[in-house]
Amino acid sequence: MSVSLPPAFATPRVFAPVVTPFTAELGIDAPRFVAFCRWLVGQGAGLALFGTNSEANSLSLSERHALLDEVIEAGIDPARMLPGTGACALPDAIALTRHACEAGCAGALMLPPFFYQGVSDEGLFAYYADVIEAVGSDQFRVLLYHIPQFTGVPITHTLIERLIAAYPRTVVGIKDSSGDWANTSAMLEKFPGFAVFPASEALLGKALPLGAAGCISATANIQPHAIASLLNAATPDERAVWEGKVATVRLAVQAQPMIPALKHIVAHFANDAAWARVRPPLTAMDSGQAGALLRQLEALDFSMPSLATVAAVAV
Amino acid sequence: MSVSLPPAFATPRVFAPVVTPFTAELGIDAPRFVAFCRWLVGQGAGLALFGTNSEANSLSLSERHALLDEVIEAGIDPARMLPGTGACALPDAIALTRHACEAGCAGALMLPPFFYQGVSDEGLFAYYADVIEAVGSDQFRVLLYHIPQFTGVPITHTLIERLIAAYPRTVVGIKDSSGDWANTSAMLEKFPGFAVFPASEALLGKALPLGAAGCISATANIQPHAIASLLNAATPDERAVWEGKVATVRLAVQAQPMIPALKHIVAHFANDAAWARVRPPLTAMDSGQAGALLRQLEALDFSMPSLATVAAVAV
Repeated sequence: MSVSLPPAFATPRVFAPVVTPFTAELGIDAPRFVAFCRWLVGQGAGLALFGTNSEANSLSLSERHALLDEVIEAGIDPARMLPGTGACALPDAIALTRHACEAGCAGALMLPPFFYQGVSDEGLFAYYADVIEAVGSDQFRVLLYHIPQFTGVPITHTLIERLIAAYPRTVVGIKDSSGDWANTSAMLEKFPGFAVFPASEALLGKALPLGAAGCISATANIQPHAIASLLNAATPDERAVWEGKVATVRLAVQAQPMIPALKHIVAHFANDAAWARVRPPLTAMDSGQAGALLRQLEALDFSMPSLATVAAVAV
Repeated sequence: MSVSLPPAFATPRVFAPVVTPFTAELGIDAPRFVAFCRWLVGQGAGLALFGTNSEANSLSLSERHALLDEVIEAGIDPARMLPGTGACALPDAIALTRHACEAGCAGALMLPPFFYQGVSDEGLFAYYADVIEAVGSDQFRVLLYHIPQFTGVPITHTLIERLIAAYPRTVVGIKDSSGDWANTSAMLEKFPGFAVFPASEALLGKALPLGAAGCISATANIQPHAIASLLNAATPDERAVWEGKVATVRLAVQAQPMIPALKHIVAHFANDAAWARVRPPLTAMDSGQAGALLRQLEALDFSMPSLATVAAVAV
């Protein structure tokens, strides 16, 4: 079983699940978001808008529609975008996916519906199939999103096989956020040509030799250039150097609540405290925790070059 | 700590999480839904529209808005309604709750946001507080919805205490769908006057003497009169008789996938196969399973009196 990967997935190979800034009233802050997207693209990253780290499930349908439109109207190339379009309600998933398709995005990263538990592969197949048929485009690409620790709803290999068989041009890959290497490596082996994105850059060293497509990773928000360098390393030695750099930052950040930590780091390097806001049910880091994390990153010589300049446009 | 329960929660004491019928294209079938609501009210039940058994999380925001409007425009009293208005996205929860409030519903049954896992009580408090403040009505009542086996996000006693302290007139009760009797009984003891609705009618025998408010239960869709009779029994002996009747039906149904089973039973007694449809990710029962369940119910002398007559209006 094999699928052919469209060029949009060949470069960039690193996608950031772009963190979403909020206004003081917890509305969407589109200008800051656009500026940050611009910075990420400048650093070599693709934009996995509306991912888990984007607090996407804390955004309404109309907020997601409007924000995607704003980013594209600001001149950022939709071919670099892989928005999250999965939803519990089938009509929402159809509306979001159709919009991403019509906007010319490279594809969509689709969560399964995640309220009902213990659902069958048959029910999940029907959900994905209904979305794909409703969108009805030969040009559009779907990546499945396996994150059972949040959804409780795994994407099984049987489901993947069935979807690839039914929609070989459309269902072209998966983000495996399970962190379960046995699952990632089994998919790489079973589905040649299928674009498998491991949970984090931590697995790239093992996954790239087996044909992994790249990386859609939380810390791509703050170290996109380093992860891109890892992915594009010309030699094993060069790759090892980037792996080391990338890992120390990841380890510091993942010891904290991930989304609040990423936003505090962006706030610091953008010189813009507004970035630290999160929507309930998440809570911002307290200043003690945040200060300790920033000192740790400073000790690693970590920075987000030129972010303050790019971000200043939005303030 | 004590809250005063508004009269709307005193009667009816049994609420059905109304199952939602779909058209052949899987759109909302409002006429069938209205007819079924009318039947439930005639049988003495309140309407917990948009609950778990209603496939509420498989419906879009606009579908839920429109359907609530249709039921009220059809002349069914909103004071008997307790719609589900919780959502992952705060703006959605605000919009749904405000709409239920403006429509004159008895209250709202609010899920916590259920995508992010391991969230803090502080974050959940902020979510509920933001909704209550945004709705901004002294007249509106909120029931919390504890169903951790689906959400992964428990409503802790600490959170309940904090919400009651901040909003004693608004946060007046909880539906405890955990099935964990230790939790239900502890809440009944700790929060006198707080309207605690146990997971199912199976717990009423133990819960009513401790002050339980009533029952919001899956099988209230099919045996509302029997559950109401149980709740209103004048003597322990009378209650025991109804408990026995109610339990045999519940045991037969809960051995099956609950929502498809309820819909098959409604389809059978409404004499209207359209009722059996579910939205993905759920799947309908196969006819073999469904037939066996119906034969089992027949052996129990179970029926849904007058449903076929009421439902015929919608077809």
